[in-house]
Amino acid sequence: MSNVLNGEKAQPEKKKIRNYGKEWIGYRPTIKVLDCTIRDGGLMNDHAFDDELVKATYDACSAAGVDYIELGYKASKRIFAPDQYGKWKYCDEDQIKKIVGKKDKPIKISVMADAERTDYHEDILPKEKSVIDMVRVATYIHQIPAAIDIVKDASDKGYETCVNVMAISTVLERELDEALENLANSDVETIYLVDSFGALYNEQIEYLTRKYLAYAKPAGKEVGIHTHNNQQLAYANTVQAIITGANRLDGSLAGLGRGAGNCPIELLISFLHNPKFRLRPILQCIQDNIEPLREELRWGFDIPYMITGYLNQHPRDAMKFNASEDRGKIVGFYDSIVEED
Amino acid sequence: MSNVLNGEKAQPEKKKIRNYGKEWIGYRPTIKVLDCTIRDGGLMNDHAFDDELVKATYDACSAAGVDYIELGYKASKRIFAPDQYGKWKYCDEDQIKKIVGKKDKPIKISVMADAERTDYHEDILPKEKSVIDMVRVATYIHQIPAAIDIVKDASDKGYETCVNVMAISTVLERELDEALENLANSDVETIYLVDSFGALYNEQIEYLTRKYLAYAKPAGKEVGIHTHNNQQLAYANTVQAIITGANRLDGSLAGLGRGAGNCPIELLISFLHNPKFRLRPILQCIQDNIEPLREELRWGFDIPYMITGYLNQHPRDAMKFNASEDRGKIVGFYDSIVEED
Repeated sequence: MSNVLNGEKAQPEKKKIRNYGKEWIGYRPTIKVLDCTIRDGGLMNDHAFDDELVKATYDACSAAGVDYIELGYKASKRIFAPDQYGKWKYCDEDQIKKIVGKKDKPIKISVMADAERTDYHEDILPKEKSVIDMVRVATYIHQIPAAIDIVKDASDKGYETCVNVMAISTVLERELDEALENLANSDVETIYLVDSFGALYNEQIEYLTRKYLAYAKPAGKEVGIHTHNNQQLAYANTVQAIITGANRLDGSLAGLGRGAGNCPIELLISFLHNPKFRLRPILQCIQDNIEPLREELRWGFDIPYMITGYLNQHPRDAMKFNASEDRGKIVGFYDSIVEED
Repeated sequence: MSNVLNGEKAQPEKKKIRNYGKEWIGYRPTIKVLDCTIRDGGLMNDHAFDDELVKATYDACSAAGVDYIELGYKASKRIFAPDQYGKWKYCDEDQIKKIVGKKDKPIKISVMADAERTDYHEDILPKEKSVIDMVRVATYIHQIPAAIDIVKDASDKGYETCVNVMAISTVLERELDEALENLANSDVETIYLVDSFGALYNEQIEYLTRKYLAYAKPAGKEVGIHTHNNQQLAYANTVQAIITGANRLDGSLAGLGRGAGNCPIELLISFLHNPKFRLRPILQCIQDNIEPLREELRWGFDIPYMITGYLNQHPRDAMKFNASEDRGKIVGFYDSIVEED
């Protein structure tokens, strides 16, 4: 198959995906990049970004050739009271329209729907009434049936669909196999490998990506990768997933995301070599809009995240610690985690 | 071969090194870790660390089970005037003795000798008159003959020896092959792959490590890895080199080192799984001694280093920029680098 993106003549797709990795200066035109700055970064400020920042991020990602931008969650207002969270927890259509205007840019809009936490029947409109292009369902392993219900609903309504299976580093392999089989038989178009705890390194990423591909490819689905930087491996693991065959990649500006953050999109697009990507708009937005948030949001690699990462734990204790007055007293944090173990 | 380190019963060495990588929770007892905090970090302060900090780092590395600590350079006082640099530029015996006292700890002492910048005939004493255990020669590709002369001198004097071939990401392959062949035929015990510009990613590290091993192993020599964090790959690339078969690993506390810094030793020893390593003393030293230097020394990942890294350039422009008042204006830096290209 040959493919054309943004009017550029692209390379023919490789027969053996593993061979791609040997071509250090080529690129794979089937790869698509999703920016999750606002969605995952929103976990650091209860989704309360102001419109100006969201618009700047949207414009920058569009100018940079990024394929999708994810703006937040479609959270149930029955479960999450709207006076407790910012507007990107709900991603109402009118709110998104304030950002995308006439939607005359090629970049697509994604929203995340948490399994069992989204009133999807009401809150996700038919596609023709929405500016949203893709519904990504986030699910823990035990919620897979609920996730597949949301996928079916979104697919029937006309959306692209995706499932992010979270916290994969703590899932028993037999259950993961069953989940992947169910997803392979579902309507979903893309299955994401998500290292929620930033616990995995490249050999594990390679192993899991191969497993995901073994289920997804025969069913005509793509595999994606979403990483966290607890062990400074978010970018490296994304590269490993690319080498192994993942074609859907998450990144965020300056790595903004929960805790240690995500794969920095500026590193990712500098690696991809596809001339459709442009680094400068991303750098401008980081300089003007993202770095000024650093002191308030305090995301990014830090030793407490390394500790929860290598112990394969949820980063919540590290996040609490880093938001406290004890920040920097890393030995105390280490002792408290070891003691609880 | 079975091996015993620090009195612990170790695993038998694997026949096929590549298989080791499949054993995610085992460890390889032949691996040795070198801390280069003071030596590489010294490139950020002209080697002017005070004795208290050096002693704290020495004590911490020793308590953590680190195998070697590198304290600085053996620079020629004829080339580098002693009133221009701190004492760790020269590593005089009396100076080192102030740190190591009776040298009753198992950790070994390394110093670096730059090819063509060391008066090694005079300044490197016979081993029996020295507290130094290993002489590491740093060399650019065109200095290999000079490096081999220093190795021979140091080896004849009774030291362990090592050669770090620098800036390997800009070396033509034919020259690298010739250099490795010469080193394989020399007295040197360990040959280090050094990614001075932080320019390489895992497939390139794998390829180069295999090449180094192909020359080193038949000659009974070890291969080491020294990385820089320009693209947040210092740790990931070190792991890749381990998987491929490197047994000598450089790291530094909190990644302290030139520019974007080195592989954080705290990440490295958390990965190695050898119970001889202890994380807590490293964390204590980072908290008490290393992090307080952050504002003054300004090492660590930053976007200007990413830019020089992916462009495979020396980080000097990024270092100058980050030490200037323009720090943070990353778009201006990007434009200046692109314009010069």
